[in-house]
Amino acid sequence: MRQDSRAVRNVLFIMCDQLRADYLSCYGHPRLRTPNIDALAARGVRFTSAYVQGSVCGASRMSTYTGRYVASHGAIWNFVPLSVGQKTLGDHLRPHGVRCALVGKTHVEPDVEGARRLGLDPSHGEGRLAMEGGFEPYARDDGIWPPGFKVSGNAYCDWLRARGYVSDNPWHDFANSGRGPDGEILSGWEMRWAREPAAIEASHSETPYTTDRAIDFMREAGDRPWLLHLSYIKPHWPYVAPAPYHALYGPGDVLPAVRSEEERSASHPVMQGFQRDTASRSFSRDEVRATVIPTYMGLVRQVDDELGRLFAFMRDQGLDRDTLLVFTSDHGDYLGDHWLGEKEMFHDPIVRVPLIVVDPREEADATRGSTSDALVECIDLAPTFLDALGLPPAPQWLEGESMVPLLHGQPGAHGKDMVVCENSYAFRDEVRLPLGQPVERCHMTMLRTRRWKFVHFEDLPPQLFDLEQDPQELCDLGRDPAYAAVREEMLARLFDWLRARKRATTIAPSAIESWNARERKAGILIGAW
Amino acid sequence: MRQDSRAVRNVLFIMCDQLRADYLSCYGHPRLRTPNIDALAARGVRFTSAYVQGSVCGASRMSTYTGRYVASHGAIWNFVPLSVGQKTLGDHLRPHGVRCALVGKTHVEPDVEGARRLGLDPSHGEGRLAMEGGFEPYARDDGIWPPGFKVSGNAYCDWLRARGYVSDNPWHDFANSGRGPDGEILSGWEMRWAREPAAIEASHSETPYTTDRAIDFMREAGDRPWLLHLSYIKPHWPYVAPAPYHALYGPGDVLPAVRSEEERSASHPVMQGFQRDTASRSFSRDEVRATVIPTYMGLVRQVDDELGRLFAFMRDQGLDRDTLLVFTSDHGDYLGDHWLGEKEMFHDPIVRVPLIVVDPREEADATRGSTSDALVECIDLAPTFLDALGLPPAPQWLEGESMVPLLHGQPGAHGKDMVVCENSYAFRDEVRLPLGQPVERCHMTMLRTRRWKFVHFEDLPPQLFDLEQDPQELCDLGRDPAYAAVREEMLARLFDWLRARKRATTIAPSAIESWNARERKAGILIGAW
Repeated sequence: MRQDSRAVRNVLFIMCDQLRADYLSCYGHPRLRTPNIDALAARGVRFTSAYVQGSVCGASRMSTYTGRYVASHGAIWNFVPLSVGQKTLGDHLRPHGVRCALVGKTHVEPDVEGARRLGLDPSHGEGRLAMEGGFEPYARDDGIWPPGFKVSGNAYCDWLRARGYVSDNPWHDFANSGRGPDGEILSGWEMRWAREPAAIEASHSETPYTTDRAIDFMREAGDRPWLLHLSYIKPHWPYVAPAPYHALYGPGDVLPAVRSEEERSASHPVMQGFQRDTASRSFSRDEVRATVIPTYMGLVRQVDDELGRLFAFMRDQGLDRDTLLVFTSDHGDYLGDHWLGEKEMFHDPIVRVPLIVVDPREEADATRGSTSDALVECIDLAPTFLDALGLPPAPQWLEGESMVPLLHGQPGAHGKDMVVCENSYAFRDEVRLPLGQPVERCHMTMLRTRRWKFVHFEDLPPQLFDLEQDPQELCDLGRDPAYAAVREEMLARLFDWLRARKRATTIAPSAIESWNARERKAGILIGAW
Repeated sequence: MRQDSRAVRNVLFIMCDQLRADYLSCYGHPRLRTPNIDALAARGVRFTSAYVQGSVCGASRMSTYTGRYVASHGAIWNFVPLSVGQKTLGDHLRPHGVRCALVGKTHVEPDVEGARRLGLDPSHGEGRLAMEGGFEPYARDDGIWPPGFKVSGNAYCDWLRARGYVSDNPWHDFANSGRGPDGEILSGWEMRWAREPAAIEASHSETPYTTDRAIDFMREAGDRPWLLHLSYIKPHWPYVAPAPYHALYGPGDVLPAVRSEEERSASHPVMQGFQRDTASRSFSRDEVRATVIPTYMGLVRQVDDELGRLFAFMRDQGLDRDTLLVFTSDHGDYLGDHWLGEKEMFHDPIVRVPLIVVDPREEADATRGSTSDALVECIDLAPTFLDALGLPPAPQWLEGESMVPLLHGQPGAHGKDMVVCENSYAFRDEVRLPLGQPVERCHMTMLRTRRWKFVHFEDLPPQLFDLEQDPQELCDLGRDPAYAAVREEMLARLFDWLRARKRATTIAPSAIESWNARERKAGILIGAW
């Protein structure tokens, strides 16, 4: 009899913000070293074709937290509230006795209007959870305050002040800014200061603070099973790192931008719009890349160091034996590739994310240290967690598939034929206004199969890349007459995908299947003579 | 200066259940007389191409009450809960001081799981409203209890008992059954008893009872503006009418069934499934039609008489001067047409409904007594009510369009290019099981343009009717090679329609449009050097 000595009891779900898959040494970066994340990969499966479902933080995270595509949960961009009608990971776990807690960032925007409509109390109980995307906010911190903003009620800022970093906005003034020769603040919001060390001790910066809170949580958690979403804000901008991380890498470690002259002169109209963006114009200059990217790398390295500390703690506590561990990101960062900065479009630097999954069970021993190029999506995480914890699936809600068969190397487990990512350019005037598009016609949908990446736009030509011939996605075939048949096939796939969305969330398929039997039992016989 | 002496203050939204458009004299029935409804048409606009969005009660009503297509609200069939995440007519009206009350049926199924998740109290305040589809249940009565069911807590059944109709289920035993020679109950659930008078005085039957409650509401309502949804259960089965309505019409008044031999021998596989249904087999027999249809007509006539009484009361009270009045139905009844009984598919007897709208304002004087063949949908009612009451639209939620421009005869107001209706055959074993379809692939979607009616099924051929050449929809062109181009065009329309659904309900388009300006004001400048 197999002894199930290593059942999954807890889930540690680690996410970075704006971390590109290729900025980790285990994913092939030639200069950046991330030994602790690499060691994680050696303990689990490293997915090389994992895709997010939204290309900005908010939409991507809401997909991961609900296990549903953007078209299904409706939170189409950053700061779009997650409807109180959506069911989240926490809602799936909590009734089964699994605590679902957050340390760090979620970018969940509360559905205040929905709460008012339903008379929810947003500060207590279920109402509060609904406003927090289903996570118990053990230590929530979404970060990101502009200079001059007076931050109050934020635990990290208060913690900084208690350590002598006193200002209205210590997050900005210390953790995310350097100092000039006369002590003046060199704001991290201006990228020219990226090589300056942050005006803070490394151990007081955001990443260690967040790690400490995760350790606190694990110490206090006791015997009740938990899922902890440990969600680092870094390496997201402002691109400022504390010493020594600001200086670990230099301009010589910066890889050349992936871009072509054709992309600049004749790119897709929506891409042209994003290329006009401030961040894109900045990152198209080599000086900016040489200044910012070493610091981005330093911030990644700091995350890796902190994870090393966390993993050591978990080993000490024996938590590595029964915890399913996931490491991923919400999307990448262009860093000048394709003449773009930030995110929003669907090139691989943005939508392909690192994904490492460590399943502690014996059944996963055969795949430890392996890589998988199976197409997988971040919406697959929620069903994976339910599956690993032995909880029932929720097929009327969850649109992803459990990855456990892949983790256990089961025959026939080979991932998906297609992955999908969505975004809307409605929120960016410099993209939308020149195109004269109404906001409701700015939705963009990416389909990626093994060979093709296709992006559908309303009222505009599509983008199409042949990933076999052009893995760097430099040659857009979206208007090339030779590829009309491929585009037709991808359109048909989009149509099929749209029709298959899960909209009837209030009834389980099993209840539908047994409908007639229950009707007969109730004595209902319609149309009898 | 125009004096707005006849502003719209209240809305009376009357709905029948299972009433075909062509079973009213103003819609051309040659035998049935409905003088009060005809008089209503003389005061307003009678729409001859009005379509419901679901072909069973639940889905149709949830569309009407939310102003959203079935694909958007997700309550795909009867008894599928309306998600707490959906916003209803009442939610749109109540914050503006307009009471939104119900007398009669809604078929709203409470989202108990959603209420539990959010900690709502389903018996009080906002929680109760969410369980009632946003209506204040002034006198809710969904009717329909099988024989032998012990009814408790139902106001109509209690009211019947107080008048001497005493049994466990007086709704069934008296209001919806006749009596045999030895006093035995002749159940209305068996259609062979349809010609028997109900064992109840006419004034105690459901339609007058419901009308009385509406009059009570109007008497009590006072000065606060209101929308009253007066929702009759009749002429929905059981097909039993009290005297004299059981005998007003006879077999000689029954029109021949609209059906062809080809429909029986070579119909669409899903239609074949519904033709196997008990009600379809019954209604395919002339004896059944001759027995049931006269009673159906009597029940319609009783509704008309009761509406006459209600309209007289409203005139007496002066309520006709400032009340927008709508008369419609949730869907029709096959009554043997196309070898079918009941509903579910998309022939005109089911999905085309009567729709009469009386706008009391001067601006509508020019259209009084006119008919309009503009394509309109029942989801247009919610935006029409908001518009008539002078309330702001809710474009992120409402998928219909205000009919006020049509009612006011505005130039350029010409209705829609296309109307849509949806259903799922997943709930009917006799349809689904022979096709071997999983429940999630049983969705069916009708598109109707001015000329064509097209029905899309997953994994099966479509249906296609040329409404110009074949207004009775007897000749299915869904597999005719000559119409391949039409089918392609209709598929493209379906694809366009699906992509245009309103999924981002938590943010207003105006908020998206002003996003960048607000971001700049907050001092957020991303990617600056």
